[in-house]
Amino acid sequence: MARIIYLNGQYLPVSHAAISPEDRGFLFGDAVYEVVACIHGHLADETGHLDRLERSLNELKMRMPVERETLRFLMRETLRRNKQKNAAIYIQISRGTAKRDFKFPAADTPQTLMIISYNHDYDNHVLYEKGLKIKTLPDIRWPRRDIKTTLLLPQSYTKQLAVEEGYDDAWMVDDEGYITEGTSNNAWIITQDNEIITRGVSTDILNGVTRTAFKKLAEPLGYKITECSFTATEAYEAKEAFISSAGTFAVPVVNIDGHIIADGKRGEMSKVLHDEYRAYVEGLRGQQVSWEAGL
Amino acid sequence: MARIIYLNGQYLPVSHAAISPEDRGFLFGDAVYEVVACIHGHLADETGHLDRLERSLNELKMRMPVERETLRFLMRETLRRNKQKNAAIYIQISRGTAKRDFKFPAADTPQTLMIISYNHDYDNHVLYEKGLKIKTLPDIRWPRRDIKTTLLLPQSYTKQLAVEEGYDDAWMVDDEGYITEGTSNNAWIITQDNEIITRGVSTDILNGVTRTAFKKLAEPLGYKITECSFTATEAYEAKEAFISSAGTFAVPVVNIDGHIIADGKRGEMSKVLHDEYRAYVEGLRGQQVSWEAGL
Repeated sequence: MARIIYLNGQYLPVSHAAISPEDRGFLFGDAVYEVVACIHGHLADETGHLDRLERSLNELKMRMPVERETLRFLMRETLRRNKQKNAAIYIQISRGTAKRDFKFPAADTPQTLMIISYNHDYDNHVLYEKGLKIKTLPDIRWPRRDIKTTLLLPQSYTKQLAVEEGYDDAWMVDDEGYITEGTSNNAWIITQDNEIITRGVSTDILNGVTRTAFKKLAEPLGYKITECSFTATEAYEAKEAFISSAGTFAVPVVNIDGHIIADGKRGEMSKVLHDEYRAYVEGLRGQQVSWEAGL
Repeated sequence: MARIIYLNGQYLPVSHAAISPEDRGFLFGDAVYEVVACIHGHLADETGHLDRLERSLNELKMRMPVERETLRFLMRETLRRNKQKNAAIYIQISRGTAKRDFKFPAADTPQTLMIISYNHDYDNHVLYEKGLKIKTLPDIRWPRRDIKTTLLLPQSYTKQLAVEEGYDDAWMVDDEGYITEGTSNNAWIITQDNEIITRGVSTDILNGVTRTAFKKLAEPLGYKITECSFTATEAYEAKEAFISSAGTFAVPVVNIDGHIIADGKRGEMSKVLHDEYRAYVEGLRGQQVSWEAGL
Protein backbone atom coordinates (compact mmCIF):
# COMPACT_ATOMS: atom_id res chain seq x y z
CA MET A 1 0.00 0.00 0.00
CA ALA A 2 1.32 3.43 -0.89
CA ARG A 3 2.10 5.62 2.09
CA ILE A 4 -0.44 8.43 2.30
CA ILE A 5 0.60 11.82 3.58
CA TYR A 6 -1.41 14.93 4.31
CA LEU A 7 -0.18 18.04 2.52
CA ASN A 8 -1.96 21.39 2.32
CA GLY A 9 -5.52 20.07 2.21
CA GLN A 10 -4.93 16.81 0.36
CA TYR A 11 -4.24 13.22 1.29
CA LEU A 12 -2.02 11.68 -1.35
CA PRO A 13 0.69 9.07 -1.92
CA VAL A 14 4.04 10.45 -0.80
CA SER A 15 5.38 9.99 -4.34
CA HIS A 16 2.67 12.36 -5.65
CA ALA A 17 3.15 15.00 -2.97
CA ALA A 18 4.96 18.13 -4.12
CA ILE A 19 6.68 20.78 -2.06
CA SER A 20 7.35 23.94 -4.05
CA PRO A 21 11.03 24.62 -4.80
CA GLU A 22 10.36 28.05 -3.31
CA ASP A 23 8.89 26.76 -0.08
CA ARG A 24 10.66 28.62 2.71
CA GLY A 25 11.17 25.32 4.48
CA PHE A 26 13.35 24.23 1.56
CA LEU A 27 15.14 27.54 0.91
CA PHE A 28 15.61 28.86 4.46
CA GLY A 29 14.91 26.07 6.97
CA ASP A 30 12.01 28.33 7.94
CA ALA A 31 9.82 25.62 9.45
CA VAL A 32 8.98 23.89 12.72
CA TYR A 33 7.94 20.33 13.46
CA GLU A 34 6.70 17.88 16.06
CA VAL A 35 6.66 14.10 16.39
CA VAL A 36 3.82 12.40 18.27
CA ALA A 37 3.86 8.69 19.02
CA CYS A 38 0.78 6.55 18.38
CA ILE A 39 0.99 3.33 20.41
CA HIS A 40 -1.68 0.71 19.99
CA GLY A 41 -3.95 3.53 18.87
CA HIS A 42 -3.12 5.88 21.76
CA LEU A 43 -1.55 9.25 21.02
CA ALA A 44 1.22 10.00 23.50
CA ASP A 45 1.07 13.42 25.14
CA GLU A 46 -0.71 14.96 22.17
CA THR A 47 -1.58 18.10 24.11
CA GLY A 48 2.00 18.62 25.22
CA HIS A 49 3.23 18.33 21.65
CA LEU A 50 0.59 20.68 20.26
CA ASP A 51 1.35 23.18 23.03
CA ARG A 52 5.02 23.08 22.10
CA LEU A 53 4.21 23.36 18.38
CA GLU A 54 2.25 26.54 19.05
CA ARG A 55 5.10 27.86 21.17
CA SER A 56 7.65 27.19 18.40
CA LEU A 57 5.43 28.95 15.85
CA ASN A 58 4.90 31.87 18.19
CA GLU A 59 8.63 32.33 18.85
CA LEU A 60 9.17 32.61 15.09
CA LYS A 61 6.17 34.86 14.43
CA MET A 62 4.30 32.13 12.57
CA ARG A 63 0.63 31.27 12.90
CA MET A 64 -1.04 27.90 13.37
CA PRO A 65 -2.19 27.16 9.80
CA VAL A 66 -5.36 25.44 11.03
CA GLU A 67 -7.30 25.29 14.28
CA ARG A 68 -5.88 22.89 16.85
CA GLU A 69 -8.98 20.72 16.65
CA THR A 70 -8.54 20.49 12.88
CA LEU A 71 -4.91 19.45 13.31
CA ARG A 72 -5.97 16.78 15.78
CA PHE A 73 -8.42 15.46 13.21
CA LEU A 74 -5.84 15.54 10.37
CA MET A 75 -3.38 13.51 12.45
CA ARG A 76 -6.00 10.86 13.13
CA GLU A 77 -7.23 10.79 9.56
CA THR A 78 -3.67 10.32 8.29
CA LEU A 79 -3.33 7.33 10.64
CA ARG A 80 -6.69 5.95 9.52
CA ARG A 81 -5.88 6.18 5.82
CA ASN A 82 -2.60 4.35 6.46
CA LYS A 83 -4.32 1.77 8.70
CA GLN A 84 -1.79 2.50 11.43
CA LYS A 85 -2.05 1.85 15.15
CA ASN A 86 1.66 2.09 15.84
CA ALA A 87 3.30 5.03 14.19
CA ALA A 88 5.37 8.15 14.68
CA ILE A 89 3.28 11.09 13.45
CA TYR A 90 5.50 13.77 11.94
CA ILE A 91 3.99 17.27 11.59
CA GLN A 92 5.86 20.04 9.77
CA ILE A 93 4.73 23.62 9.26
CA SER A 94 6.69 26.07 7.11
CA ARG A 95 6.14 29.76 6.51
CA GLY A 96 4.90 28.87 3.02
CA THR A 97 5.96 29.56 -0.55
CA ALA A 98 7.15 32.96 -1.71
CA LYS A 99 9.75 34.48 -3.98
CA ARG A 100 13.13 34.00 -2.31
CA ASP A 101 13.72 36.88 0.12
CA PHE A 102 15.30 36.92 3.57
CA LYS A 103 12.47 39.17 4.75
CA PHE A 104 9.40 37.26 5.83
CA PRO A 105 6.66 37.09 3.17
CA ALA A 106 3.29 38.82 3.60
CA ALA A 107 1.50 37.66 6.74
CA ASP A 108 -1.35 36.13 4.72
CA THR A 109 0.98 33.85 2.71
CA PRO A 110 -0.50 30.34 2.98
CA GLN A 111 1.69 28.16 5.16
CA THR A 112 2.71 24.62 4.30
CA LEU A 113 1.27 21.96 6.59
CA MET A 114 2.46 18.40 6.16
CA ILE A 115 1.74 15.27 8.17
CA ILE A 116 3.59 11.99 7.59
CA SER A 117 2.98 8.93 9.76
CA TYR A 118 5.82 6.44 9.86
CA ASN A 119 5.22 2.84 10.95
CA HIS A 120 6.96 2.23 14.25
CA ASP A 121 7.01 -0.89 16.38
CA TYR A 122 7.15 0.35 19.97
CA ASP A 123 6.92 -3.15 21.43
CA ASN A 124 9.93 -4.77 19.82
CA HIS A 125 12.40 -1.92 19.65
CA VAL A 126 15.71 -3.81 19.76
CA LEU A 127 17.51 -0.90 21.47
CA TYR A 128 15.57 -1.29 24.72
CA GLU A 129 17.57 -4.38 25.59
CA LYS A 130 20.73 -3.69 23.65
CA GLY A 131 21.13 -0.07 24.68
CA LEU A 132 22.95 2.74 22.95
CA LYS A 133 26.61 3.51 22.47
CA ILE A 134 26.98 7.28 22.77
CA LYS A 135 29.84 9.54 21.71
CA THR A 136 30.14 13.06 23.14
CA LEU A 137 30.78 15.73 20.50
CA PRO A 138 30.69 19.54 20.46
CA ASP A 139 27.25 21.15 20.25
CA ILE A 140 27.33 23.12 16.98
CA ARG A 141 23.73 24.33 16.89
CA TRP A 142 22.37 27.87 16.94
CA PRO A 143 21.52 29.25 20.40
CA ARG A 144 17.71 28.81 20.19
CA ARG A 145 17.51 25.05 20.71
CA ASP A 146 14.23 25.56 22.61
CA ILE A 147 12.46 26.13 19.27
CA LYS A 148 11.81 22.89 17.39
CA THR A 149 12.89 24.05 13.93
CA THR A 150 14.00 22.04 10.92
CA LEU A 151 17.50 23.57 11.22
CA LEU A 152 18.64 20.01 11.86
CA LEU A 153 21.80 19.69 9.79
CA PRO A 154 24.02 20.30 12.86
CA GLN A 155 22.34 17.43 14.73
CA SER A 156 22.34 15.22 11.65
CA TYR A 157 26.01 15.90 10.96
CA THR A 158 26.89 15.25 14.61
CA LYS A 159 25.01 11.96 14.70
CA GLN A 160 26.67 10.92 11.46
CA LEU A 161 30.14 11.59 12.93
CA ALA A 162 29.26 9.35 15.89
CA VAL A 163 27.90 6.60 13.66
CA GLU A 164 31.01 6.65 11.49
CA GLU A 165 33.06 5.99 14.63
CA GLY A 166 30.95 2.98 15.57
CA TYR A 167 28.55 4.69 17.98
CA ASP A 168 24.75 4.79 17.76
CA ASP A 169 24.31 8.48 18.49
CA ALA A 170 25.95 11.52 20.07
CA TRP A 171 25.44 13.63 23.17
CA MET A 172 26.30 17.22 22.45
CA VAL A 173 28.59 19.20 24.75
CA ASP A 174 28.55 22.98 25.29
CA ASP A 175 31.58 25.28 25.47
CA GLU A 176 31.82 24.79 29.25
CA GLY A 177 32.01 21.01 28.95
CA TYR A 178 28.44 20.28 29.99
CA ILE A 179 26.24 17.92 28.02
CA THR A 180 23.26 19.68 26.46
CA GLU A 181 21.25 16.78 25.02
CA GLY A 182 21.22 14.04 22.38
CA THR A 183 20.86 14.82 18.68
CA SER A 184 17.09 14.17 18.86
CA ASN A 185 16.45 13.38 22.52
CA ASN A 186 17.12 14.54 26.07
CA ALA A 187 20.04 13.09 28.04
CA TRP A 188 19.74 11.63 31.55
CA ILE A 189 22.03 9.98 34.08
CA ILE A 190 21.36 8.33 37.43
CA THR A 191 24.06 8.64 40.06
CA GLN A 192 25.28 5.81 42.31
CA ASP A 193 23.00 7.42 44.95
CA ASN A 194 19.94 6.97 42.72
CA GLU A 195 19.62 10.66 41.93
CA ILE A 196 18.18 11.15 38.45
CA ILE A 197 19.84 14.07 36.70
CA THR A 198 18.90 15.89 33.51
CA ARG A 199 19.83 19.35 32.31
CA GLY A 200 17.51 22.20 33.30
CA VAL A 201 15.30 23.86 30.73
CA SER A 202 16.64 26.95 28.94
CA THR A 203 17.27 28.07 25.36
CA ASP A 204 20.18 25.57 25.37
CA ILE A 205 17.98 22.48 24.95
CA LEU A 206 14.61 21.43 23.68
CA ASN A 207 12.12 21.10 26.52
CA GLY A 208 11.17 17.48 25.83
CA VAL A 209 7.52 16.55 26.21
CA THR A 210 8.52 13.04 27.24
CA ARG A 211 11.11 14.58 29.58
CA THR A 212 8.32 16.55 31.28
CA ALA A 213 6.17 13.44 31.59
CA PHE A 214 9.06 11.52 33.21
CA LYS A 215 9.41 14.27 35.79
CA LYS A 216 5.74 13.93 36.71
CA LEU A 217 5.81 10.14 36.77
CA ALA A 218 8.95 10.00 38.91
CA GLU A 219 7.41 11.66 41.94
CA PRO A 220 4.84 9.03 42.94
CA LEU A 221 7.56 6.42 42.39
CA GLY A 222 9.65 8.13 45.06
CA TYR A 223 12.40 8.91 42.55
CA LYS A 224 14.40 12.07 43.05
CA ILE A 225 14.95 14.12 39.89
CA THR A 226 17.46 16.97 39.92
CA GLU A 227 17.64 19.36 37.00
CA CYS A 228 21.23 20.44 36.55
CA SER A 229 24.00 20.32 33.99
CA PHE A 230 26.42 17.40 34.05
CA THR A 231 29.71 16.59 32.32
CA ALA A 232 30.80 13.60 30.27
CA THR A 233 33.05 12.55 33.17
CA GLU A 234 30.05 12.49 35.52
CA ALA A 235 28.17 10.46 32.94
CA TYR A 236 30.99 7.89 32.71
CA GLU A 237 30.57 7.22 36.45
CA ALA A 238 26.77 6.98 36.38
CA LYS A 239 24.84 4.00 37.68
CA GLU A 240 22.49 4.30 34.71
CA ALA A 241 22.20 6.55 31.68
CA PHE A 242 19.40 6.91 29.18
CA ILE A 243 17.72 9.13 26.62
CA SER A 244 14.10 10.25 26.41
CA SER A 245 12.21 11.14 23.25
CA ALA A 246 8.73 11.03 21.79
CA GLY A 247 9.83 8.33 19.39
CA THR A 248 11.45 5.94 21.85
CA PHE A 249 10.50 7.02 25.43
CA ALA A 250 13.44 5.82 27.61
CA VAL A 251 16.27 4.00 25.87
CA PRO A 252 19.22 2.86 27.97
CA VAL A 253 22.72 4.14 27.25
CA VAL A 254 25.29 1.45 27.98
CA ASN A 255 28.47 3.03 26.64
CA ILE A 256 29.65 6.64 26.60
CA ASP A 257 32.91 7.39 24.78
CA GLY A 258 33.96 3.79 25.39
CA HIS A 259 33.13 3.82 29.12
CA ILE A 260 30.73 0.99 29.97
CA ILE A 261 27.67 2.14 31.95
CA ALA A 262 25.70 -0.15 34.28
CA ASP A 263 27.69 -3.24 33.27
CA GLY A 264 26.48 -2.62 29.71
CA LYS A 265 22.91 -3.60 30.60
CA ARG A 266 19.56 -1.85 30.72
CA GLY A 267 19.20 -0.04 34.04
CA GLU A 268 16.35 -0.76 36.42
CA MET A 269 15.10 2.75 37.12
CA SER A 270 15.06 3.87 33.51
CA LYS A 271 13.09 0.73 32.65
CA VAL A 272 10.54 1.57 35.34
CA LEU A 273 10.19 5.11 33.95
CA HIS A 274 9.78 3.71 30.46
CA ASP A 275 7.12 1.21 31.53
CA GLU A 276 5.28 3.84 33.59
CA TYR A 277 5.22 6.17 30.61
CA ARG A 278 3.84 3.44 28.35
CA ALA A 279 1.18 2.60 30.92
CA TYR A 280 0.29 6.29 31.18
CA VAL A 281 0.05 6.65 27.40
CA GLU A 282 -2.00 3.50 26.95
CA GLY A 283 -4.54 4.62 29.51
CA LEU A 284 -3.75 1.98 32.13
CA ARG A 285 -3.63 4.84 34.61
CA GLY A 286 -6.94 6.19 33.32
CA GLN A 287 -5.50 9.35 31.71
CA GLN A 288 -6.06 8.59 28.04
CA VAL A 289 -8.34 6.68 25.71
CA SER A 290 -7.64 5.46 22.20
CA TRP A 291 -8.34 8.09 19.58
CA GLU A 292 -10.28 5.48 17.63
CA ALA A 293 -12.99 5.52 20.29
CA GLY A 294 -13.97 8.93 19.00
CA LEU A 295 -14.18 8.03 15.31
CA MET B 1 6.19 33.73 -19.75
CA ALA B 2 6.33 31.07 -17.06
CA ARG B 3 9.57 31.04 -15.12
CA ILE B 4 11.55 27.93 -16.03
CA ILE B 5 13.69 26.24 -13.41
CA TYR B 6 16.09 23.33 -13.66
CA LEU B 7 15.37 20.49 -11.25
CA ASN B 8 16.98 17.06 -11.28
CA GLY B 9 17.37 16.68 -15.03
CA GLN B 10 14.33 18.62 -16.17
CA TYR B 11 13.55 22.19 -17.19
CA LEU B 12 10.02 23.04 -16.17
CA PRO B 13 7.76 25.87 -15.04
CA VAL B 14 8.33 26.59 -11.36
CA SER B 15 4.67 25.81 -10.67
CA HIS B 16 5.19 22.27 -12.03
CA ALA B 17 8.42 21.61 -10.18
CA ALA B 18 8.12 19.28 -7.20
CA ILE B 19 10.46 18.80 -4.28
CA SER B 20 9.74 15.60 -2.36
CA PRO B 21 8.31 16.12 1.14
CA GLU B 22 11.13 13.84 2.28
CA ASP B 23 13.90 15.82 0.61
CA ARG B 24 16.56 16.35 3.25
CA GLY B 25 16.70 19.99 2.29
CA PHE B 26 13.11 20.33 3.47
CA LEU B 27 13.30 18.06 6.55
CA PHE B 28 16.80 18.87 7.85
CA GLY B 29 18.13 21.99 6.12
CA ASP B 30 20.66 19.54 4.70
CA ALA B 31 21.57 21.56 1.61
CA VAL B 32 24.01 24.15 0.31
CA TYR B 33 23.61 26.92 -2.22
CA GLU B 34 25.29 29.63 -4.27
CA VAL B 35 24.13 32.76 -6.04
CA VAL B 36 25.92 33.90 -9.20
CA ALA B 37 25.15 37.23 -10.86
CA CYS B 38 24.63 37.44 -14.61
CA ILE B 39 25.11 41.04 -15.78
CA HIS B 40 24.50 41.90 -19.40
CA GLY B 41 25.23 38.26 -20.16
CA HIS B 42 28.42 38.07 -18.10
CA LEU B 43 28.64 35.65 -15.20
CA ALA B 44 30.33 37.27 -12.22
CA ASP B 45 33.15 35.26 -10.63
CA GLU B 46 31.63 31.98 -11.70
CA THR B 47 34.78 30.04 -10.84
CA GLY B 48 34.94 31.53 -7.35
CA HIS B 49 31.34 30.55 -6.69
CA LEU B 50 31.76 27.02 -8.00
CA ASP B 51 34.96 26.64 -5.95
CA ARG B 52 33.06 27.69 -2.83
CA LEU B 53 30.14 25.41 -3.71
CA GLU B 54 32.50 22.44 -3.90
CA ARG B 55 34.06 23.48 -0.60
CA SER B 56 30.65 23.69 1.12
CA LEU B 57 29.72 20.24 -0.20
CA ASN B 58 33.04 18.82 0.89
CA GLU B 59 32.75 20.20 4.43
CA LEU B 60 29.40 18.40 4.75
CA LYS B 61 30.54 15.16 3.11
CA MET B 62 28.37 15.74 0.06
CA ARG B 63 29.36 15.17 -3.56
CA MET B 64 28.95 17.42 -6.57
CA PRO B 65 25.85 15.89 -8.20
CA VAL B 66 27.17 16.62 -11.70
CA GLU B 67 30.52 17.53 -13.22
CA ARG B 68 31.45 21.18 -12.91
CA GLU B 69 31.30 21.62 -16.68
CA THR B 70 27.78 20.21 -16.67
CA LEU B 71 26.74 22.63 -13.94
CA ARG B 72 28.18 25.50 -15.94
CA PHE B 73 26.10 24.39 -18.90
CA LEU B 74 22.91 24.00 -16.82
CA MET B 75 23.27 27.52 -15.44
CA ARG B 76 23.59 28.95 -18.94
CA GLU B 77 20.76 26.85 -20.34
CA THR B 78 18.46 28.00 -17.50
CA LEU B 79 19.27 31.61 -18.42
CA ARG B 80 18.71 30.90 -22.11
CA ARG B 81 15.32 29.28 -21.59
CA ASN B 82 14.25 32.29 -19.52
CA LYS B 83 15.71 34.73 -22.08
CA GLN B 84 17.68 36.41 -19.29
CA LYS B 85 20.78 38.57 -19.56
CA ASN B 86 20.43 40.15 -16.12
CA ALA B 87 19.65 37.64 -13.42
CA ALA B 88 20.70 36.18 -10.10
CA ILE B 89 21.34 32.48 -10.66
CA TYR B 90 20.42 30.50 -7.56
CA ILE B 91 21.88 26.97 -7.27
CA GLN B 92 20.83 24.62 -4.47
CA ILE B 93 22.07 21.10 -3.81
CA SER B 94 20.56 18.91 -1.10
CA ARG B 95 21.62 15.48 0.09
CA GLY B 96 18.55 14.07 -1.67
CA THR B 97 15.36 12.27 -0.68
CA ALA B 98 15.31 9.47 1.87
CA LYS B 99 13.18 8.19 4.71
CA ARG B 100 13.53 10.67 7.58
CA ASP B 101 16.61 9.74 9.63
CA PHE B 102 19.20 11.94 11.31
CA LYS B 103 21.89 9.62 9.96
CA PHE B 104 22.98 10.45 6.42
CA PRO B 105 21.34 8.29 3.74
CA ALA B 106 23.34 5.82 1.63
CA ALA B 107 26.15 7.53 -0.25
CA ASP B 108 24.59 6.70 -3.64
CA THR B 109 21.29 8.46 -2.81
CA PRO B 110 20.59 10.81 -5.74
CA GLN B 111 21.06 14.41 -4.67
CA THR B 112 18.65 17.21 -5.49
CA LEU B 113 20.06 19.85 -7.85
CA MET B 114 17.96 22.94 -8.49
CA ILE B 115 18.74 26.10 -10.46
CA ILE B 116 16.45 29.13 -10.41
CA SER B 117 17.35 32.35 -12.21
CA TYR B 118 15.69 35.47 -10.89
CA ASN B 119 15.44 38.60 -13.02
CA HIS B 120 17.61 41.31 -11.51
CA ASP B 121 18.27 44.82 -12.78
CA TYR B 122 21.85 45.58 -11.80
CA ASP B 123 21.87 48.96 -13.55
CA ASN B 124 18.99 50.65 -11.77
CA HIS B 125 19.23 49.27 -8.27
CA VAL B 126 17.69 52.08 -6.23
CA LEU B 127 19.80 51.26 -3.17
CA TYR B 128 23.05 52.33 -4.80
CA GLU B 129 22.05 55.98 -4.44
CA LYS B 130 19.73 55.73 -1.47
CA GLY B 131 21.93 53.49 0.65
CA LEU B 132 20.97 51.13 3.43
CA LYS B 133 19.82 51.71 6.99
CA ILE B 134 21.43 48.98 9.11
CA LYS B 135 20.56 47.78 12.60
CA THR B 136 23.07 45.78 14.63
CA LEU B 137 21.60 42.67 16.23
CA PRO B 138 23.06 39.58 17.94
CA ASP B 139 24.45 36.88 15.67
CA ILE B 140 22.32 33.81 16.41
CA ARG B 141 23.70 31.42 13.81
CA TRP B 142 25.49 28.11 14.27
CA PRO B 143 29.30 28.31 14.44
CA ARG B 144 30.02 27.11 10.88
CA ARG B 145 29.10 30.26 8.95
CA ASP B 146 31.88 29.49 6.46
CA ILE B 147 29.66 26.79 4.92
CA LYS B 148 26.95 28.23 2.67
CA THR B 149 24.05 26.10 3.92
CA THR B 150 20.31 26.70 3.72
CA LEU B 151 20.20 26.97 7.54
CA LEU B 152 19.06 30.54 6.92
CA LEU B 153 16.24 31.03 9.39
CA PRO B 154 18.53 32.85 11.87
CA GLN B 155 19.55 35.36 9.17
CA SER B 156 15.99 35.66 7.90
CA TYR B 157 14.62 36.21 11.40
CA THR B 158 17.33 38.79 12.15
CA LYS B 159 16.68 40.72 8.94
CA GLN B 160 12.96 40.66 9.66
CA LEU B 161 13.54 42.15 13.15
CA ALA B 162 15.53 44.99 11.56
CA VAL B 163 12.89 45.60 8.88
CA GLU B 164 10.13 45.75 11.49
CA GLU B 165 12.07 48.53 13.22
CA GLY B 166 12.34 50.56 10.03
CA TYR B 167 15.79 49.41 8.89
CA ASP B 168 16.69 47.77 5.58
CA ASP B 169 18.87 45.00 6.99
CA ALA B 170 20.96 43.95 9.98
CA TRP B 171 24.65 43.54 10.75
CA MET B 172 25.14 40.67 13.15
CA VAL B 173 27.29 41.05 16.27
CA ASP B 174 29.22 38.28 18.03
CA ASP B 175 29.42 37.70 21.80
CA GLU B 176 32.48 39.95 22.07
CA GLY B 177 30.71 42.89 20.45
CA TYR B 178 32.36 42.60 17.03
CA ILE B 179 30.34 42.71 13.84
CA THR B 180 30.48 39.42 11.93
CA GLU B 181 28.66 40.28 8.69
CA GLY B 182 25.30 41.22 7.17
CA THR B 183 22.45 38.72 6.95
CA SER B 184 23.40 37.88 3.34
CA ASN B 185 26.51 39.97 2.68
CA ASN B 186 29.89 40.98 4.09
CA ALA B 187 30.24 44.18 6.12
CA TRP B 188 32.85 46.87 5.44
CA ILE B 189 33.81 50.24 6.88
CA ILE B 190 36.31 52.89 5.76
CA THR B 191 37.99 54.91 8.49
CA GLN B 192 38.54 58.67 8.40
CA ASP B 193 42.13 57.76 7.37
CA ASN B 194 40.85 55.89 4.28
CA GLU B 195 41.66 52.47 5.67
CA ILE B 196 39.18 49.90 4.37
CA ILE B 197 38.30 47.38 7.07
CA THR B 198 36.45 44.09 6.85
CA ARG B 199 36.46 41.12 9.20
CA GLY B 200 39.08 38.43 8.57
CA VAL B 201 38.07 35.05 7.21
CA SER B 202 37.31 32.26 9.72
CA THR B 203 34.41 29.95 10.51
CA ASP B 204 32.63 33.05 11.91
CA ILE B 205 31.71 34.47 8.49
CA LEU B 206 31.13 33.40 4.93
CA ASN B 207 34.19 34.04 2.81
CA GLY B 208 32.48 36.25 0.23
CA VAL B 209 33.46 35.75 -3.40
CA THR B 210 32.76 39.42 -4.08
CA ARG B 211 34.68 40.28 -0.91
CA THR B 212 37.71 38.44 -2.30
CA ALA B 213 37.39 40.23 -5.63
CA PHE B 214 37.26 43.63 -3.87
CA LYS B 215 40.50 42.80 -2.07
CA LYS B 216 42.21 42.10 -5.39
CA LEU B 217 40.77 45.16 -7.10
CA ALA B 218 41.74 47.48 -4.24
CA GLU B 219 45.48 46.99 -4.57
CA PRO B 220 46.06 48.55 -8.02
CA LEU B 221 43.82 51.43 -6.88
CA GLY B 222 46.23 52.12 -4.03
CA TYR B 223 43.54 51.36 -1.44
CA LYS B 224 44.64 49.88 1.84
CA ILE B 225 42.49 46.97 3.03
CA THR B 226 42.90 45.68 6.59
CA GLU B 227 41.20 42.48 7.64
CA CYS B 228 40.21 42.78 11.28
CA SER B 229 37.13 42.74 13.46
CA PHE B 230 35.39 46.02 14.21
CA THR B 231 32.64 47.11 16.60
CA ALA B 232 29.39 48.94 16.01
CA THR B 233 30.89 52.01 17.69
CA GLU B 234 33.78 52.01 15.22
CA ALA B 235 31.27 51.70 12.40
CA TYR B 236 29.28 54.72 13.68
CA GLU B 237 32.43 56.85 13.27
CA ALA B 238 33.35 55.54 9.82
CA LYS B 239 33.89 57.77 6.82
CA GLU B 240 32.05 55.24 4.67
CA ALA B 241 30.33 51.92 5.24
CA PHE B 242 29.07 49.38 2.74
CA ILE B 243 28.14 45.77 2.12
CA SER B 244 29.38 43.39 -0.55
CA SER B 245 27.48 40.47 -2.04
CA ALA B 246 27.12 38.52 -5.26
CA GLY B 247 23.67 39.99 -5.75
CA THR B 248 24.46 43.65 -5.24
CA PHE B 249 28.29 44.11 -5.32
CA ALA B 250 28.92 47.21 -3.13
CA VAL B 251 25.89 48.93 -1.62
CA PRO B 252 26.48 51.96 0.60
CA VAL B 253 25.37 51.94 4.22
CA VAL B 254 24.24 55.42 5.27
CA ASN B 255 22.77 54.75 8.71
CA ILE B 256 23.80 52.32 11.44
CA ASP B 257 21.58 52.13 14.52
CA GLY B 258 20.44 55.67 13.80
CA HIS B 259 23.95 57.09 13.37
CA ILE B 260 24.29 58.81 10.00
CA ILE B 261 27.34 57.66 8.01
CA ALA B 262 29.06 59.82 5.37
CA ASP B 263 26.41 62.55 5.60
CA GLY B 264 23.87 59.94 4.56
CA LYS B 265 25.26 59.76 1.01
CA ARG B 266 26.97 57.13 -1.10
CA GLY B 267 30.71 57.11 -0.31
CA GLU B 268 33.32 57.72 -2.98
CA MET B 269 35.65 54.77 -2.38
CA SER B 270 32.92 52.16 -2.17
CA LYS B 271 31.50 53.49 -5.42
CA VAL B 272 34.91 53.11 -7.08
CA LEU B 273 35.14 49.51 -5.83
CA HIS B 274 31.65 48.83 -7.12
CA ASP B 275 32.38 50.29 -10.54
CA GLU B 276 35.71 48.46 -10.77
CA TYR B 277 33.99 45.18 -9.97
CA ARG B 278 31.36 45.77 -12.64
CA ALA B 279 34.04 46.63 -15.17
CA TYR B 280 35.93 43.47 -14.21
CA VAL B 281 32.81 41.30 -14.54
CA GLU B 282 31.78 42.81 -17.84
CA GLY B 283 35.19 42.14 -19.34
CA LEU B 284 36.22 45.76 -19.72
CA ARG B 285 39.49 44.74 -18.09
CA GLY B 286 39.80 41.79 -20.46
CA GLN B 287 39.20 39.06 -17.89
CA GLN B 288 35.84 37.74 -19.01
CA VAL B 289 33.65 37.32 -22.06
CA SER B 290 29.90 36.90 -22.27
CA TRP B 291 28.82 33.30 -21.85
CA GLU B 292 26.66 33.70 -24.95
CA ALA B 293 29.79 33.92 -27.10
CA GLY B 294 30.30 30.23 -26.45
CA LEU B 295 26.81 29.04 -27.33
